[in-house]
Amino acid sequence: MSTLESWLLPDGIEEVLPRQAARVERARRQVLDLFAAWGYEFVVTPHIEFLDSLLTGVGQELALRTFSVTDPLSGQLMGFRADITPQVARMDAHSLRREGPSRLCYAGSVVHARPRALSTSRSPIQLGAELYGDASLAADIEVISLMLETLQQARIADVHLDLGHVGVFRGLAKAASLSPLAEEQLFAALQRKAVSDVAELTADLPAELADMLKALCGLCGGPEVLEKARAALIAAPRSVRDALEDLQNLADVLGRRYPDIPVYFDLSELRGYNYHTGVVFAAFVPGVGQSIAQGGRYDDIGAVFGRSRPATGFSTDLKTLVNLGAADELISRTAIWAPADDDAALWQTICTLRAQGETVIQALTGQTLADAPAGCDRHLQLTGGQWTTEQI
Amino acid sequence: MSTLESWLLPDGIEEVLPRQAARVERARRQVLDLFAAWGYEFVVTPHIEFLDSLLTGVGQELALRTFSVTDPLSGQLMGFRADITPQVARMDAHSLRREGPSRLCYAGSVVHARPRALSTSRSPIQLGAELYGDASLAADIEVISLMLETLQQARIADVHLDLGHVGVFRGLAKAASLSPLAEEQLFAALQRKAVSDVAELTADLPAELADMLKALCGLCGGPEVLEKARAALIAAPRSVRDALEDLQNLADVLGRRYPDIPVYFDLSELRGYNYHTGVVFAAFVPGVGQSIAQGGRYDDIGAVFGRSRPATGFSTDLKTLVNLGAADELISRTAIWAPADDDAALWQTICTLRAQGETVIQALTGQTLADAPAGCDRHLQLTGGQWTTEQI
Repeated sequence: MSTLESWLLPDGIEEVLPRQAARVERARRQVLDLFAAWGYEFVVTPHIEFLDSLLTGVGQELALRTFSVTDPLSGQLMGFRADITPQVARMDAHSLRREGPSRLCYAGSVVHARPRALSTSRSPIQLGAELYGDASLAADIEVISLMLETLQQARIADVHLDLGHVGVFRGLAKAASLSPLAEEQLFAALQRKAVSDVAELTADLPAELADMLKALCGLCGGPEVLEKARAALIAAPRSVRDALEDLQNLADVLGRRYPDIPVYFDLSELRGYNYHTGVVFAAFVPGVGQSIAQGGRYDDIGAVFGRSRPATGFSTDLKTLVNLGAADELISRTAIWAPADDDAALWQTICTLRAQGETVIQALTGQTLADAPAGCDRHLQLTGGQWTTEQI
Repeated sequence: MSTLESWLLPDGIEEVLPRQAARVERARRQVLDLFAAWGYEFVVTPHIEFLDSLLTGVGQELALRTFSVTDPLSGQLMGFRADITPQVARMDAHSLRREGPSRLCYAGSVVHARPRALSTSRSPIQLGAELYGDASLAADIEVISLMLETLQQARIADVHLDLGHVGVFRGLAKAASLSPLAEEQLFAALQRKAVSDVAELTADLPAELADMLKALCGLCGGPEVLEKARAALIAAPRSVRDALEDLQNLADVLGRRYPDIPVYFDLSELRGYNYHTGVVFAAFVPGVGQSIAQGGRYDDIGAVFGRSRPATGFSTDLKTLVNLGAADELISRTAIWAPADDDAALWQTICTLRAQGETVIQALTGQTLADAPAGCDRHLQLTGGQWTTEQI
């Protein structure tokens, strides 16, 4: 990248040149076709909305990532979408208002004022699928399966899956009757796995509860963690034990469906899932610090738009899928070169070939066969009064 | 549209619900495939860039339509793209730096701070094709032809084409040695076809030149206008007469290729083509006040990015194409309903059907065949130990 280019584009903002753009477009179609095969209907959400609509109920982290401007027409604050999921939830709750489950999917650019992490893109192409109206674990299983199929289709190797459940911490925090501020501090300490901070913040709680909260820091690893968790949290409220049972069921089904994908559990790490309420999950690959696809359950986000609905879904970045996907997927498309002749029969021949799916590049004034670009392997030639295709 | 929805979305900002989104997505693929068949390579430009890069050389009108924010990382002003064409010109001039002609195309949302006209969308999905590196009329003919093919493919009826040439006015203005301010005032008066203002602004010019400028207001109509123009502008500089010859050649070729599409000429209307330098064109349909696709020649816009290149291209709005396209193009996709059974053989059957291109919707916990959505015309049933597809 030249100095001039880096001056021209802000940090974390990329353009996609032809060769890579062809791969991005192909991957986009493949993923949307996969979503369609699972019954997910495509929707398009606006790039810009009133800030109130975009940010209600989604937490502070997303607000910090959202660019805002004043609408010259209404004088109200508007924001550029930094996440599409809450918009789709609004669509389900407000615009569609269907009875029963609703499966929706989307693909579109988002813009982040601040990157998710150091050297992360600020202009990902967010792809995702959301399932509304069903509170059962079957819905979570479906969206996690679809996420894993999406990564498989993109030919991304060595994927592993992290599973967690917001209900574990929430249930313990509720039992402890923590103030919102204390709950937030404890949540932050757990995410950092800062054991001594957790100990300090739980010092005034009943010993049994404090012990369970402290135990969360250590409850991460393979499927054996669930057994440890059941023992450590045996005195926890019912909702916490239900959450563990959900995770066990998830592990069982996913293990049967995707035996080659390792599953890890982490009962304290909640990865900034501001609006999530139940099962949370993320896919990782070696050598990439951030999750490459992620999601979870986020019931009731639609309540602010007039209707509270169960919801679960996942999202990923199309450019990440293409960059990490198998490198042998280069797209080569051959083309036919046509001379710069204004003959009506030539024009008809070109139209017919294009309608058949061929690429035909017509010479511009002064260009000859020698000017045909690299992809052209054939050219149109007038032979015996007929325009015919010849090898170059 | 309910009151709540109109409150939730700003004026001119739309969301696209499933039925319409399926049509938008299909049209997007068809248009990009058409562009590919003509040798145009797909590129993706950023949604946000430094304002200087976005707006250099593109004129005041686009600046007014562009939302700007301060980049928290660099402290510099950034803008949200309101037009993709200048970005693609930058890509050609700076990032690709190819020798010879370069054909590029794109499809993506833009955001307008102010709508192009009353009740126009502020969030169109801009689709376009641009041809760089060739100054000949053949390039203009190619992009106008591709624009007309795009509208035909979208099954838009009763299209007519308006043609103009910025060189006609520019050549006369140059001969008159007008100050930039006087040229701008005269340009504005001509766009309004305000004959008396034009007379006043040209009062001090030599009579022959003043007469030619005044004549422009009346030079609009069918192909006969070109003959009138040749007579009225016979004393004009060579560049003006060349522009008229270009328009005549365009009319001849397009008349042969698209005999059913009426062509109109207007030698004064320049439709806010701020960065255009030569032939300009726009497609209209009855009952829609704004052009539905438009473009023109805009040589040298890449100069500010290090390389001056001839350029011509067109753009349109995907949502407009879909809204105006033939209404019988509804998409019906049938689906197969699968029970909520965790049987491994069922899962394999579902995977196979989906891989074959079928849509399979699996029941969630508690759902039965009665819950299958309207599109399901078959369901999976266990018969003699085999999962088979039966009609519903």
